[in-house]
Amino acid sequence: MERVPVLKIGDILLVSIQVDMSDQTAVTLQEDLAERIVATGCHGVIIDITALDIVDSFVGRMLSTIASISRVLDAETVVVGMRPAVAITLVELGLSLNGIRTALNVERGMELIAAARAAEWVLTDGDEDAETTATT
Amino acid sequence: MERVPVLKIGDILLVSIQVDMSDQTAVTLQEDLAERIVATGCHGVIIDITALDIVDSFVGRMLSTIASISRVLDAETVVVGMRPAVAITLVELGLSLNGIRTALNVERGMELIAAARAAEWVLTDGDEDAETTATT
Repeated sequence: MERVPVLKIGDILLVSIQVDMSDQTAVTLQEDLAERIVATGCHGVIIDITALDIVDSFVGRMLSTIASISRVLDAETVVVGMRPAVAITLVELGLSLNGIRTALNVERGMELIAAARAAEWVLTDGDEDAETTATT
Repeated sequence: MERVPVLKIGDILLVSIQVDMSDQTAVTLQEDLAERIVATGCHGVIIDITALDIVDSFVGRMLSTIASISRVLDAETVVVGMRPAVAITLVELGLSLNGIRTALNVERGMELIAAARAAEWVLTDGDEDAETTATT
């Protein structure tokens, strides 16, 4: 069975999605990530989708689920490396990846997570990203 | 065509191999890596093989080639995340991954590269290859 590796780099878990996600792969990835967040105490999850030609509703939902799970476990999720064509298709499909932060590349994702942690921002679902102060 | 993404993290390029490597994928990866090393000036390449169940002679040769190319471009290569079973099979196959440094995980690989850069070590091929002094 395909299994997407979860790499720990400092305070961040990095996942690079390169294979077509099946139901089982997606569930395994979610479980692996949740376990690793708890085991390592990491506060950030970066999901790299550079290799993906297509982000359909299934992948979109998987990303949302991962972001939600991470949030419950006190970790920020940032999706990085989205291709321009993927972004266009996403919008055309009416998928807005609600609740998912994005960054251009891994380094910017790391900066975003560091900044978010520093400011203790709360990730808000929805379009306008209202900034609220969190008490952790 | 499958394309393995090359992620830049600080001074290091990270490649996570998750798909079966074809001739074409391997060549593309080598070209991508060489171009990225030159473009970014990175001094380290980390290749994660956590996802690989098998490292056969083809993959072994690809790793060696990548290490050699990187070395010429003044970058260290470290292979990380090898599974115990893969290590056993490698030795049984008589492949010793000459000239390739290994580390347990990405973080240790980064430490190894940082230490190597600091000490300006010369990467020596495996057991018998003669040590040469480099002027960097």
